[in-house]
This record gives sequence, C-alpha cells and structure tokens, in this order.
Amino acid sequence: LATTSGIITITTDFGTRDGYVAAMKGVMLDICPDAGLVDVSNEVEPQDVMGSAFILRKTVDYFPAGTVHLAVVDPGVGTERRPLAVSCGGMYFVGPDNGLFSLVLADREPERIVELDNPEFWATPRPSSTFHGRDVFAPAAAHLAAGRSIESLGTTVDSMTSMHWALPISDEQGIQGWVVHVDRFGNCITNISRALVDERSDRRAFKCYAGNAIIKDFNTTYAEAETGDATLLFNSGDMLEIAIFRNSASELLDIRKGAAVNLVFADDKS
Amino acid sequence: LATTSGIITITTDFGTRDGYVAAMKGVMLDICPDAGLVDVSNEVEPQDVMGSAFILRKTVDYFPAGTVHLAVVDPGVGTERRPLAVSCGGMYFVGPDNGLFSLVLADREPERIVELDNPEFWATPRPSSTFHGRDVFAPAAAHLAAGRSIESLGTTVDSMTSMHWALPISDEQGIQGWVVHVDRFGNCITNISRALVDERSDRRAFKCYAGNAIIKDFNTTYAEAETGDATLLFNSGDMLEIAIFRNSASELLDIRKGAAVNLVFADDKS
Amino acid sequence: LATTSGIITITTDFGTRDGYVAAMKGVMLDICPDAGLVDVSNEVEPQDVMGSAFILRKTVDYFPAGTVHLAVVDPGVGTERRPLAVSCGGMYFVGPDNGLFSLVLADREPERIVELDNPEFWATPRPSSTFHGRDVFAPAAAHLAAGRSIESLGTTVDSMTSMHWALPISDEQGIQGWVVHVDRFGNCITNISRALVDERSDRRAFKCYAGNAIIKDFNTTYAEAETGDATLLFNSGDMLEIAIFRNSASELLDIRKGAAVNLVFADDKS
Repeated sequence: LATTSGIITITTDFGTRDGYVAAMKGVMLDICPDAGLVDVSNEVEPQDVMGSAFILRKTVDYFPAGTVHLAVVDPGVGTERRPLAVSCGGMYFVGPDNGLFSLVLADREPERIVELDNPEFWATPRPSSTFHGRDVFAPAAAHLAAGRSIESLGTTVDSMTSMHWALPISDEQGIQGWVVHVDRFGNCITNISRALVDERSDRRAFKCYAGNAIIKDFNTTYAEAETGDATLLFNSGDMLEIAIFRNSASELLDIRKGAAVNLVFADDKS
Repeated sequence: LATTSGIITITTDFGTRDGYVAAMKGVMLDICPDAGLVDVSNEVEPQDVMGSAFILRKTVDYFPAGTVHLAVVDPGVGTERRPLAVSCGGMYFVGPDNGLFSLVLADREPERIVELDNPEFWATPRPSSTFHGRDVFAPAAAHLAAGRSIESLGTTVDSMTSMHWALPISDEQGIQGWVVHVDRFGNCITNISRALVDERSDRRAFKCYAGNAIIKDFNTTYAEAETGDATLLFNSGDMLEIAIFRNSASELLDIRKGAAVNLVFADDKS
Repeated sequence: LATTSGIITITTDFGTRDGYVAAMKGVMLDICPDAGLVDVSNEVEPQDVMGSAFILRKTVDYFPAGTVHLAVVDPGVGTERRPLAVSCGGMYFVGPDNGLFSLVLADREPERIVELDNPEFWATPRPSSTFHGRDVFAPAAAHLAAGRSIESLGTTVDSMTSMHWALPISDEQGIQGWVVHVDRFGNCITNISRALVDERSDRRAFKCYAGNAIIKDFNTTYAEAETGDATLLFNSGDMLEIAIFRNSASELLDIRKGAAVNLVFADDKS
C-alpha cells in the first residue's frame, strides 16, 4: 500500500448549492469510509482553470504528506481530454488533464502520471458523459486515500497538458505584472514576487501604477496603513498585493483580475 | 444495534452564514463523536421543500448503506406538523413531515415511519418552538448514526405526508415538461427523462421550445456544442437538460425554474 | 494531557472562495490528523468582530466539552495585538485579542489566558505578517485538540481585551433595544431578552416600533402568523425577534442591523 494521509481536498467550480459536491463525497465515503474530506474551494468562476490552480497552489503545501487533491474544473467533460491521477513529492492529484496540475506544481516534476482507464476503479461501468467528477475522479481519489497504488488506477503515461503562469516583465527601470486574484476582502494579489522586487529594485523606492491609482505607501501589515489609503504589501505567499485597510482596493481603485500593475523604481537609492 | 455508516448528510435552507447548521453539528457530535458530517446543500431557497428534495434525491444513492439524511426545511416549525424519522432500503431520513421524504424516495416504500415523540432523545426537555433542527432533528439523526434503533426514537406511525413530482404530459406528437432546477452553471434541468423521450420519439428527431429559443442541437457532452449555441443533452441523472457551453442557458435564453419545455417530434424517422 | 473532544470549530471572515480556510485546515490536520473540523461561519462581514461573536456565542454551548473554538477576525493582524488562547468552563478559544472572546463568554470568567508566544507551536519560525490564522492560530488550535496543555503554548497573562454587548434601556413604560443580527431568512433578532420583557411588561400587552412598522402580533412559531403579516416572537435563544412568515421582515419593514426597536407597554394588564 502507498503512503496516504487519508485526507482528500476538493477544488471544483460546482458551487455548494446543487449537491454535486455532496454526490462526490458520497462516492468517496462509500469507497474509503475514514477519508477526511476538506473543501478547498467550490466557488471559483465556472470553467476557470487558472483561478482554481491559483487557490489550490496556495494550500497544497500545508496538508500532510500523502494527501490527495481532487480538482475538477472540467469544461471538456465527456470529450477526449484524459482523466488523470498524478503523484509528486508525496502529494496526489486527481482530475481532468486540463493543465491545472502543472500550474499547481509549477517547477515541480511529477513522478508518475496515470490515465484513469481502469474501469474497475470507476463508480460505474458506464460513466455519465457530463459528471466524471462523480463517476471517475471521486472514486480514483478515494482509492488513493484508501492506500491503493496510483499504478493500479490505469495506464502510466508520459506527459500531461502543461500550462505556465504568465511571468512579469522587468528591467532596471521597473516591473510590469498583473493582478492574478482578487480575494473576498478586495485585496488585489499580483504575480510580482518579493524576490523579483528585491532583485530589480536594488533597494530603490518605487511607485505602483494600477487601476486609477498611483500607490507609494508600502507596509508590512494591513493595519499599518491609514484607513482608506491604498497600500502595497507582500502577502502570506510573498507576492505583491494592493490593499486598503478595512475596504476593498479592487472596488475603490477599480482594479480587476487581469489588470496591469506597473512598478517604477526611483532614480536614487533611498 | 442497527446498521449505520456513521455518516449524516445535512440538507437545510439555513444558509452557512448564521451558525444554525453549526449548532446542529455541535449537538450531533456531542451525541455521536465519530459521526461523519456531510453538507448536501444549505442554500436552497428558504422554505423550498421541492427544491431541497430535488437536490437530495440526486445524492442519496451515492452514500454507503446505513447513512442518515437529515433534511430540515421547515416552514411549519413548532406547529402540529410531526417530526419524523423514516427508514427505507438501508437509508434513514430525519426531518419534519412536509412531504420532502416522499419526493426523495419517489416510488420506494418506506419500511418504518417513526414520530420523534420520545423526549429522551431530544436535545432538551422543552424544545425551542423555532429551531427543531437543533433540538429535535439533529439529536435523532445522531442517535441513528450512533447505532440506536429507529423504533426507540418514538411511536411508529402508519403514514407520512406524500407529495409527487409533476410528470410531463406526452403523446405521439411531443412531450410537455418543466424546468425543475437551474444549477450554478445556468444549466436548465427538466423533468423529461431519457426513457420517456426514447419511448415517445421512437427515434424521430425533435425540436425543443423553451424560453425565447427553439433548440434543435442534441449532444452528449457540453463541449461538443459550439460555444454560445444552446444544446440539449441528457445529464448525469438521465434527465433532459438545456445548456450553453461556457455560458448560462438560463440567462441567455431566459429560462427560469418552472418554465415550460415543449418537445415536438419530426414527422419522419431520421 | 488536557481534556479534548478533538473538535475544532472555525469562525472567520475569510469567505469560502479563496482557500484561506483550507490552508488553516491543512495546518491543523498536519498537527492533529484526527481533528474533527466544523465551520461555524466564514461569511461574516469583513472585520466584523461583534457579528462573529454573535454567531459563535449561539453555538459554543452545543459542542462537547473540550472543544476548541478557533475565531480569526483580525483587522490588526501583524501588529502588536496579542495572539491568545483562552480556556473557560471546558472550552478553548484561539484567536487575536480583539474582544471577540469576551463577547462570546459574556459573564463567564476565563480560567486561563495565554499569549501564543512560544514559537515551538507556530507553523513556521517566522509567521507571515498578514496571515496569523494559518501560521499562529491554526497550529495552536490543533495542539490543543491533540491534547497539549494551554500553558505550554506560551506565557500566561492576566487579562484580555474586554468588550460588552450593548444592553437595552428600559423602564415601566417600555424597552428600547437594537437589532443585533439579520439572518438569512430576513428575521431581525434584537438584544431584548424574554426575561427582560417578562420583568418589565408585568403581563401588559405591548406594541413594537421598528423600521416602518408598528407590530402588535405576538406568536410562538413563525407559521402561526398570517403569511405577509409581521410578528414578534422569542427565538431559539430566547431573544425577541421580528419576523414575517415566508418572507423577509428586514426587507419588507426596512429594518437593518443596528436599527432601534421600541417596545411600548399598554396602560392596563391584559
């Protein structure tokens, strides 16, 4: 038996209203009664593979070794896109081959990629053409959580669909990035890392142009900013974030997901 | 002790914001610390018994034998409507006698119906008149999950409130049904089954009139349709569904829950 | 080892969309794999300490002895406000020192208050300045659930920030209170208790002035009122509530959170 934590995390665009996630949980508990089920998010925008990957990526490293991450954002359900299980560094991923796993893993190389073509491990011999989450992916996740080997679930394959996060453009004068996520608080999270800013700024101060604002304030915590003033900070994932203490930066500054964010460095070191 | 999976599913109209479901979970874990609690949906429209039944019905068969389904949509809380526990085919149901269980079970006959009139199994000797979910239903569900017999919870009674799904009207020319659910994706699920279409169409092609559209396309998966085009398909429950790939059929075609759906068969077999 | 139920409840303003709660759950399951995790609410308004306390307060007494209540509504994250664990009457609380616990405990005196300053029990030696929920509070909650003593988590301190619920004003003529919560159904829950009404009214009838309405009807259950008519009742927490059967009292009567509610007693006993 393979190493398993018995935990299955769930990331879908199914919402929590229609019972789709519950049907998957029923299937999983029927196969692995002791599984610990944790919802990561079921509320990403429908069909938003990148948005789901962004959220899942921030959580996977906090779960115990041997955790299974079930991620079903599946606009191509029922078509030729392959159903996969992937192992990497003690984690498992289960879901459609749509690039999501490569975005979550980023630079980490998968150890094994398996196409879920062994019908013995499906919930039914004839899976529905519209709900592989229930009929193919949930049972595979549960079998992994129960300790079955990833090899047993189907045919080992060479590769999976690979997608890449768009990287910021940068030079000596500045950095141009994007807002990749707007969270519940209206905080705008960019794809500009602390490491990149440190390297390119070489301790020079900078201004940030985003939406309708030019932001110069830089703080370590939300509360250090004046209420109502926009601030920059590095968030818990060490990415540059635009925030307004006790308000929504996204709404007040008109910065949406996908918006350009330009850092311009001062001429002199501060 | 009766057969139990130790799992309790939860279906309510309480929402997830106000802590009502959490109070029920506290009561259940106090009685049955090892219970596995699974939310089916807490976000049906307030007092929507049929909508809750529709969602729960699609999930119950995926849970292990001996699972308890707690379903509290209870506009009549505190009045004479009876609190019930019901057993049927290895499943248990707990909730108010409002017809919901008969809708979930459809043609399946309950084996035993018990009125929850034994105060020993309430959370308190004097239940609140506005929150039987916490004081009467949650404890009953937890006692069942802990393996106590359904008979012990109260007086066995002869019958429960019975409601029926409205069936489509059909003849040689066509089928008239309704939209019974619009899901998060805007997919419009009708009460027209694959079996009925197969029987009545006798392989003739058909047009579907619904909302502001006439839909002729029929596909097996969402992705087979052109982006932006409406399509018909049979969903994971083998019911006719109106969908638009990557968009909301409900919004774009102006089809709401309750809307009429008319299938008209072609004169000749295709 | 201290008494523990192994259950951790979770109350935050993080929402369920962004994966923040899932990251905390991963941290907790890594430390205490058998923890039972129950969401109380993650959907209070951002930074609403009082609203979170109101919801958590209604649930804590229903959980088994030895339950840990993790409550992270934390506008001051990363600043000098202290991270705390508190024990009281067999319950544990973990979260920032923002007054929330004193509102939940009301008149109950904490037995021990510990500042979470022992880095051995943090998730990382250098906690993020914006997400103590993940790096400081979740690990503390998990260690308590795993049976570690509260003393071990840091330095015992003398006091915590204390906040108080605003009490109604009352005299022989009437009671003036407030709406402290509007729930999913649009029911308006006031801070006027059954005990206060009983004491002050001395069995006299009363009218209630709130929003755009004068409400005279008093019922025991929602369903006893005529559909569409506003009614008063005492809810499952024995607090006065303004409701409309099958509709939203908040919307129809224009009563929002914080609105004044005036009870005026009749001259004569009824």
